[in-house]
Amino acid sequence: MRALRFSRPGHPLEVLELVELPEPKPGPGQALVEVLASPISPTDRLGLRGLYPLPFADNIPGVQGVARVLELGPDCGGPPVGSMIILPVRCGAWRERLCVPVAELVVIPPGRDPAESSTLRIEALTAAVLLDDLAPGDWFIHSPGAGAVGRYLTALGGLRDMHSIALVGSREPIADLWGLGADHVLVREPSLPNRLAELGLPSPRMAFDGSGGVASELLATCMAPTGELIVYGAVSRMPVQLSVAQLVFRDIQVRGFWLYRWARAAGPEYVQASLQELVTLNLRERVEAQVSLDDWRDGLHLSEQPGIRGRVVLTP
Amino acid sequence: MRALRFSRPGHPLEVLELVELPEPKPGPGQALVEVLASPISPTDRLGLRGLYPLPFADNIPGVQGVARVLELGPDCGGPPVGSMIILPVRCGAWRERLCVPVAELVVIPPGRDPAESSTLRIEALTAAVLLDDLAPGDWFIHSPGAGAVGRYLTALGGLRDMHSIALVGSREPIADLWGLGADHVLVREPSLPNRLAELGLPSPRMAFDGSGGVASELLATCMAPTGELIVYGAVSRMPVQLSVAQLVFRDIQVRGFWLYRWARAAGPEYVQASLQELVTLNLRERVEAQVSLDDWRDGLHLSEQPGIRGRVVLTP
Repeated sequence: MRALRFSRPGHPLEVLELVELPEPKPGPGQALVEVLASPISPTDRLGLRGLYPLPFADNIPGVQGVARVLELGPDCGGPPVGSMIILPVRCGAWRERLCVPVAELVVIPPGRDPAESSTLRIEALTAAVLLDDLAPGDWFIHSPGAGAVGRYLTALGGLRDMHSIALVGSREPIADLWGLGADHVLVREPSLPNRLAELGLPSPRMAFDGSGGVASELLATCMAPTGELIVYGAVSRMPVQLSVAQLVFRDIQVRGFWLYRWARAAGPEYVQASLQELVTLNLRERVEAQVSLDDWRDGLHLSEQPGIRGRVVLTP
Repeated sequence: MRALRFSRPGHPLEVLELVELPEPKPGPGQALVEVLASPISPTDRLGLRGLYPLPFADNIPGVQGVARVLELGPDCGGPPVGSMIILPVRCGAWRERLCVPVAELVVIPPGRDPAESSTLRIEALTAAVLLDDLAPGDWFIHSPGAGAVGRYLTALGGLRDMHSIALVGSREPIADLWGLGADHVLVREPSLPNRLAELGLPSPRMAFDGSGGVASELLATCMAPTGELIVYGAVSRMPVQLSVAQLVFRDIQVRGFWLYRWARAAGPEYVQASLQELVTLNLRERVEAQVSLDDWRDGLHLSEQPGIRGRVVLTP
């Protein structure tokens, strides 16, 4: 049974190895599953470089994914053999098969595409939890609009009758985001605050920032005074940057959001229930490419390219 | 009666003019005062450049200062003629004489030096209010330790039995800050977190940031997880910069502090009472130079030099 494993932090293409591991056998309370799709997530890429503060199970990346139940262990309820499920977080999904606790599985309704469902666990749940602080009718602004969390924020915001302003780096993904139900999709550029005023849009009280760098200041500039800027990542690889004008004179509040901390506070049952609700919705990841374990180097290489517009998904 | 006035935003040396104004005469409820000392404050320098969101009275800078009562208007209680007082904020103190409401005056006990008392209104009050969120025995960390707010934070922290870690850009001001009662004064350098660990110091839950730029990240790094970083300025003229590691993984919360907003919420009586309490303490501004109105160009020029270690004070 093959897996992608690493033994030291470094560049993914240098530290990962395709290895042969013993075939796993499910114990009591466990299911043997075959991995159908596991995306190359930012957490994987950070973790491989030693920049993520939590370890991977068995030194195998793949913090999320979708699998099919092959066999149930002894004394085991759980989803029937053949069910498609969301894998537990950080289980190490970059392998062909593994055993997981049945209590942690979330069944995906039939007919869904595994690759398109492969980021429900982290990115869709992040978006869902971020929006829990808003009510129907509320406005929010977010960047990067075309990232995985950004696309889920747009889609879920629409489903919850909220109004979203999605910021993107170029015009390319705009039509795509409209298709997800975005109210407004605008390019991140200095004239943005004027553009919002021209359009007569209200200043949102909440912003979600997965960009960092100069986008943080732009988001803050578009917000109402005393608004809350929630940072969930920094895809620009730049620190969040905010001026005294925003922090001091306009009283913009800043805090981070980490799904791991939220999940610890919420407890496993609540996390399961939230995911169970999410899988019933029509949410889809945008998939840039699907690659087999044999082609893992191509997949990793592609995932490191700037400007790719969807997720690279490993299909072990 | 002479005053320094400006009519358009720009570089202070280009837009200020020494002008002759009619001699002021106190109306009911007013006192005529002669200005003894008004510092060249960051607010003045920002305001002259059009970068501060509040106007100066009569287009005359001088957002704070110390004066002596010359004459009381009709139907007027107020401090006796000859009293030394703290001027109302943003009254436009860069002039020889002006009329101010007696209800807003705070009397300074005799024997104090006007120049050394000239930043009580903004910087000392800022420090006092920032420390109101802490209790005796608490630790805090702050930067720039050798700035006006930083020096007051150190001095007031000592008086309130708190423990301070003041960060400075060079070793030069260290002895001076020890003289103010600092527990620890350390240079802002990447090894700082290790140095704090070597010294066995606890990680503070509160940081005060008047530096901005890379100092913000350094402050956050030294704090306990979930700590609060309060931004009151950015003397580096760089935006506050914070990484995902601090905001997301360590849950550092960020908010701004603006004395103007605090004062509006607190109300004028509470502001007066707070200042009245402050003037009874032995607090002193570090004065770099005192210049007369005739030498205003020299004073402004000096105040714009990087690395000066005290306030330039105009003595009209």
